[in-house]
Amino acid sequence: MRGKLYGVGVGPGDKELVTVKALRILREADVIMAPKMKSGETTAYNIVEEYIREKTVIECVMPMSKDFEALSRNYEALADQIEKHLKDGKSAAFITLGDPTVYSTYMQLNEIIRKRGYETEIIPGITSFCAAAARLNMPLCERNEPLLILPASYEQSKESLHFPGTKVLMKANRGILSTRDMLIEEGLIDHAVMVECCGMENEKIYRDMRELKEKSSYFSLVIVKE
Amino acid sequence: MRGKLYGVGVGPGDKELVTVKALRILREADVIMAPKMKSGETTAYNIVEEYIREKTVIECVMPMSKDFEALSRNYEALADQIEKHLKDGKSAAFITLGDPTVYSTYMQLNEIIRKRGYETEIIPGITSFCAAAARLNMPLCERNEPLLILPASYEQSKESLHFPGTKVLMKANRGILSTRDMLIEEGLIDHAVMVECCGMENEKIYRDMRELKEKSSYFSLVIVKE
Repeated sequence: MRGKLYGVGVGPGDKELVTVKALRILREADVIMAPKMKSGETTAYNIVEEYIREKTVIECVMPMSKDFEALSRNYEALADQIEKHLKDGKSAAFITLGDPTVYSTYMQLNEIIRKRGYETEIIPGITSFCAAAARLNMPLCERNEPLLILPASYEQSKESLHFPGTKVLMKANRGILSTRDMLIEEGLIDHAVMVECCGMENEKIYRDMRELKEKSSYFSLVIVKE
Repeated sequence: MRGKLYGVGVGPGDKELVTVKALRILREADVIMAPKMKSGETTAYNIVEEYIREKTVIECVMPMSKDFEALSRNYEALADQIEKHLKDGKSAAFITLGDPTVYSTYMQLNEIIRKRGYETEIIPGITSFCAAAARLNMPLCERNEPLLILPASYEQSKESLHFPGTKVLMKANRGILSTRDMLIEEGLIDHAVMVECCGMENEKIYRDMRELKEKSSYFSLVIVKE
């Protein structure tokens, strides 16, 4: 019997915004893989830490590079690390922040492992934009409104901001000041709210982004209502 | 002490895709309000039924009308029903399918109750589109790709289908055959997958929507990759 890989979404930061299914998979898995950023951050792990104290947790340093070849090599090496356990018939659960299908680099690993002939399964998680809207006590979209999710670094952001309905700018970290300036230029600043580290201890809400003085954490997003 | 209203997302259908927070709120709430469609369906209630066997559950028939005034009156009447409990200092949890901030009529009630001076809180849930992508073992969006969520009935669907990135057509129930025809006309049918009742007992996946012969359940969506 060959092992199976699970990609487990652990939600945006609040320890209670983890699903019953995610907890069961984490409890049942033989090995848990937790992403670690180059900076040392292990945000996804911190969310579920108290539920998995007894488990074997392997830290995976996530590759970050603009060199596509180097990136690929790094993912293959990470996949090798996971495959060692799967080959022995062990199940592995790779935890990811938010939802695995929304801007998660986990999906690259999922694809490599699947192509190597192993079964994989994705456990959905609460997205940061749903958590932020809930925190702000406001709808993301109602009736016939579209909802457009954009990485803040998306090239056509400027034009896309005028698409009908609600826009969410994700991963608006280092570029947040230019995002704010763009919102001012496009006359949308009064329609924008920014949430930083939603549901975490250091959560911050900017209802007026003009008050934003410095670059932001990786975990920030902007909701722009029509 | 006046009571508080919680809007609790219970996810797309799988009983395990409920969060720890949703379960705590349902356990602690004095009264649980469960939406009931005119057809008698109580899908949100069915998801959490086994967790709330001991609780007082009040069925709320959800107004459906194109007459805006009639709809408003109906929501006010529902709010009156909720307010009776809040006035007594009781907390009420209104359960909603998926996430409360994504196309949920609950937000209308939330707004009315908030305007009447009561505290409200929203508990996010797993969206149907995240669950469907997970089920299909595929990413919704990666790297710099946008993600566009549209109600299938959205007037500019045809043009929007050519927006870059992934498109999700929600609530593609009665109009599903015209949605399919539109996808064929626009040359996108081979990029589309349809998921009906994701995570429920009667789940169905159409990887080739040309095989679709009849109109579909309310709980279906189409993912269109670029």
